[in-house]
Amino acid sequence: MTRTRVHNMMVSLDGYAAGTTVTLEEPIGAARALFGQFDGRVIHGVQHADAPITLDRALTSLWGQGVGAEIMGRRKFGPQTGPWPEDGWRGWWGEEPPFRTPVYVLTHHPRPPMEFANGTSFRFVDASPAEALALAQEAAGRLDVRIGGGPTTVRQFLAADLIDMMHLIIVPIVLGEGTSLWEGLGNVQDRFEVETIASPSGLTHQLWNRLPA
Amino acid sequence: MTRTRVHNMMVSLDGYAAGTTVTLEEPIGAARALFGQFDGRVIHGVQHADAPITLDRALTSLWGQGVGAEIMGRRKFGPQTGPWPEDGWRGWWGEEPPFRTPVYVLTHHPRPPMEFANGTSFRFVDASPAEALALAQEAAGRLDVRIGGGPTTVRQFLAADLIDMMHLIIVPIVLGEGTSLWEGLGNVQDRFEVETIASPSGLTHQLWNRLPA
Ligand SMILES: NC(=O)c1ccc[n+]([C@@H]2O[C@H](COP(=O)([O-])OP(=O)(O)OC[C@H]3O[C@@H](n4cnc5c(N)ncnc54)[C@H](OP(=O)(O)O)[C@@H]3O)[C@@H](O)[C@H]2O)c1
Ligand SMILES: NC(=O)c1ccc[n+]([C@@H]2O[C@H](COP(=O)([O-])OP(=O)(O)OC[C@H]3O[C@@H](n4cnc5c(N)ncnc54)[C@H](OP(=O)(O)O)[C@@H]3O)[C@@H](O)[C@H]2O)c1
Repeated sequence: MTRTRVHNMMVSLDGYAAGTTVTLEEPIGAARALFGQFDGRVIHGVQHADAPITLDRALTSLWGQGVGAEIMGRRKFGPQTGPWPEDGWRGWWGEEPPFRTPVYVLTHHPRPPMEFANGTSFRFVDASPAEALALAQEAAGRLDVRIGGGPTTVRQFLAADLIDMMHLIIVPIVLGEGTSLWEGLGNVQDRFEVETIASPSGLTHQLWNRLPA
Repeated sequence: MTRTRVHNMMVSLDGYAAGTTVTLEEPIGAARALFGQFDGRVIHGVQHADAPITLDRALTSLWGQGVGAEIMGRRKFGPQTGPWPEDGWRGWWGEEPPFRTPVYVLTHHPRPPMEFANGTSFRFVDASPAEALALAQEAAGRLDVRIGGGPTTVRQFLAADLIDMMHLIIVPIVLGEGTSLWEGLGNVQDRFEVETIASPSGLTHQLWNRLPA
């Protein structure tokens, strides 16, 4: 059994998970307040932060557990639109991208792959969610596939009923505008069992597990 | 920075974490009800159970993260008391003990170590908590040390102020008798920041992080 999982998806009270615009200076656009309490140091385990092991850090640490490949949208990879400029861009993360697995980047503008010494690779594919998932599952072998975002990408996988498990973090802020996680997904909750956990920090964690068919 | 951590310590509402008697037939004595909701499959990661990734499973999975050695009491290792009989006993876990690291077993009756193919070893030491911790830290290198229980052992490490982080699971049952986690530890909470998280399952998780000195 392998799963298709979403982790640490930060969502505002009005349902936005990214800003409307993404630029080199503002990777998350107007939505950067979503990440105010996020401790990215622990995505590979709670031992990586010299800080209390809180509920928030504990749940954040699920991100890398048993994951063998990621799928992301191109706007998570970078701010470019249209045909790729020759700007030497290799993602936001420098030469140590945190993924350490193959990453499939969805784009209508495929290009040659990029490889990194730490096991990360970016492979650019123009594919439907189901096609991209088949590629990622083959790369992941017996491990799970993570759908890494952004919201446009997660939304497509939810619409195609391809998500088995989803960890949302509801951030108590109102953004007013941005890219919605939920648009077009009315009643999506009916397909899931949802656990809601209030964190002492003020965040709300939700664990969505798909109901058996 | 390395830490000394306790994980998945199951405690009844009256503060017991083990039965008064431990036998071959009853490893947890009269306290086995404590483990009714525990899914041991996920101690090395949530990917190991073909089951919903609930809060309970998510927090259980912290157990192995970044841990390089364990310390346990001899009564967690087996039901024997006094000098060791020549009974071929190698622990409850067969030839695949889940630890996969060196394990220091506290006992007033030292004996030769045992090695397993999966990286687990049991080393029997007659030592104070501080002495045992020094040994385990050396074996763990840059990783953390887990204090694995039972309650008699955890209690000693708490009394000596050697615990940095502790994940308790308060099980909503009353045992009436057993081995207490708390005996002699009045006001121990003053040294910690405690987060309490109610699980939809009825369990209560607590994350104890030691306050800066
Ligand atoms: N809130 C969070 O936790 C979270 C998590 C991750 C990311 N983010 C943020 O989310 C933002 C990015 O998300 P987003 O929703 O704006 O965009 P996105 O999902 O990252 O990328 C969308 C783009 O990917 C391409 N694409 C998507 N599906 C495709 C398909 N099936 N076939 C071909 N191409 C496809 C399209 O680009 P082209 O047509 O131009 O090729 C599309 O415009 C960033 O700001 C990032 O920081 C937030
Ligand atoms: N509730 C939970 O989550 C949980 C977790 C783990 C285990 N358990 C259960 O807890 C029970 C065992 O716990 P327990 O409290 O009864 O016993 P324990 O802590 O496992 O072992 C106590 C024994 O270890 C030896 N010992 C302890 N400290 C020592 C020291 N500083 N120096 C030398 N020897 C030392 C002594 O044995 P000798 O003097 O005989 O050598 C002592 O009687 C088992 O039933 C186990 O299943 C429960």
